[in-house]
Amino acid sequence: MMKGTGSGILAIWSAQAGARKVYAVEATKMSEHARSLVKANNLQDIVEVLEGSMEDVVLPEKVDVIISEWMGYFLLRESMFDSVICARDRWLKPTGVMYPSHARMWVSPIRSGLVDQKKNDYEGAMDDWYGFLEDTKNSYGVDMSILTKPFAEEQEKYYMQTSLWSNLHPHQLIGTAAIVKEIDCLTATVNDIREVSSTFSSTISMEQARFCGLAGWFDVHFRGRIEDPAQQEIELTTAPNLNNGTHWGQQVFLLHPPVHVDQGSNLDISFSMIRSKENHRLMEVDFDVKISQASGKILPSIKKKFYIE
Amino acid sequence: MMKGTGSGILAIWSAQAGARKVYAVEATKMSEHARSLVKANNLQDIVEVLEGSMEDVVLPEKVDVIISEWMGYFLLRESMFDSVICARDRWLKPTGVMYPSHARMWVSPIRSGLVDQKKNDYEGAMDDWYGFLEDTKNSYGVDMSILTKPFAEEQEKYYMQTSLWSNLHPHQLIGTAAIVKEIDCLTATVNDIREVSSTFSSTISMEQARFCGLAGWFDVHFRGRIEDPAQQEIELTTAPNLNNGTHWGQQVFLLHPPVHVDQGSNLDISFSMIRSKENHRLMEVDFDVKISQASGKILPSIKKKFYIE
Repeated sequence: MMKGTGSGILAIWSAQAGARKVYAVEATKMSEHARSLVKANNLQDIVEVLEGSMEDVVLPEKVDVIISEWMGYFLLRESMFDSVICARDRWLKPTGVMYPSHARMWVSPIRSGLVDQKKNDYEGAMDDWYGFLEDTKNSYGVDMSILTKPFAEEQEKYYMQTSLWSNLHPHQLIGTAAIVKEIDCLTATVNDIREVSSTFSSTISMEQARFCGLAGWFDVHFRGRIEDPAQQEIELTTAPNLNNGTHWGQQVFLLHPPVHVDQGSNLDISFSMIRSKENHRLMEVDFDVKISQASGKILPSIKKKFYIE
Repeated sequence: MMKGTGSGILAIWSAQAGARKVYAVEATKMSEHARSLVKANNLQDIVEVLEGSMEDVVLPEKVDVIISEWMGYFLLRESMFDSVICARDRWLKPTGVMYPSHARMWVSPIRSGLVDQKKNDYEGAMDDWYGFLEDTKNSYGVDMSILTKPFAEEQEKYYMQTSLWSNLHPHQLIGTAAIVKEIDCLTATVNDIREVSSTFSSTISMEQARFCGLAGWFDVHFRGRIEDPAQQEIELTTAPNLNNGTHWGQQVFLLHPPVHVDQGSNLDISFSMIRSKENHRLMEVDFDVKISQASGKILPSIKKKFYIE
């Protein structure tokens, strides 16, 4: 069974790979294109396209395999895994298999010129604001300075606290990366992914690095289940890569100002990610970073909240 | 009374200009900033900020004047005038005045390099698609050519049938501009603006012009009402302007392929604009253009549908 089949391409490949029957579920009108594509490839006896949400659709039988490409930025943005869980709990046989079967979230300290660029953007926006205040006061007789604080907060949120999409170069990773979450797609519940938190350490591996923030990415594995393993395990990783990035890239969380750290310095990092109350498809991330320099010096801890939008 | 007061700046100016009492209505949390700005300028006895929609808010009295900046792209996009009409019918005294008091929509034939650029963009997207079809067929064993037609339609809608924001140079207007709608803000009903249609002629004023499409813009006037005219009439125009454009710019509707027209040629143009069924804040525009060349030659008429998004 295919969840969120879109054009139907994965459903067609499943049929071409030998599936006896494929139920391809798609919530949007795209289902009509999927249906015509299935027919054009003469697979209409195997692939059945069903238009409807995973929560409502009714299949004539339980299935052996669920395949879905549900991953968002930093794995969980968009919260699409919720309806995969729903599909699994409603329609997967007790002996069934999920593809992908496992997922992991990673975090690593990084260096990045974006830290300077975003700071400049923020300062430019504030300079413009102060110019506007002057004009409004002198030319139009209204003192708007009472709005400086909320304006600055809004700009800070936008320029400094919103995570950025980036395809990093591996050399921008300045310390050891850590796994902050492992998900077994066969057993995970919505509660397991609603809030993700982890504390971990990272050792700076680069000489004279400039610690500019943290990056988050994910990988997923096609491993099957212990009783029914894949013939060949496949990994899809969105880690920084020299040759070719993915459209997921990495999410970058910048820390201002950047801190110079020596090789061998240790970071103790506390990470948590919850769904935004306003929009459950977006995320709020909190980092708390303690730096112990290689020299023995311990810096004040850095706490910062971010929004994945 | 102020409708959609935002930061409250127009309400404050109204008070500074001598209003006895100003009710500043704002539907969003921005009302809190408006209230603090009013207080910071010591006008809290005159300006009362009310949070709520115009449809629901209750004022303690009827008002003499309604001021609102409700204009969207090509005047009517966003359909904000609906709630100004609601405010007027609920809260304006029979002798009251609207500011702005009058609005007009304009259309003119234009030349624009965008016509080539968008055509290239469309052709690039289709070239990419054909490359993708080849790959999918040869490398992945799936024939996706059945989707060429819906894909091309989608790309055509996006690149060729979506109106574009532009701040045109006056020299890009190649013929006489025509008024396609006049609105008296004191008397217009929602029915009057739900559908706008007009037939008009335009004479090509430029030598050897390349007719690339049509542009639409608006102006509004602060004229008061006949029984209570403004001391000095003010016009706000968003027409193409040599010195400074407005953030509204003009909406450009491109016609492919461009047609060479001589000075003195005549265009008979039929224009209609209705609200999109899917989203009443967006618009669908139909143009039907008949060109009579100065030489006497009459060209086949050009019909095209556009979307203002």
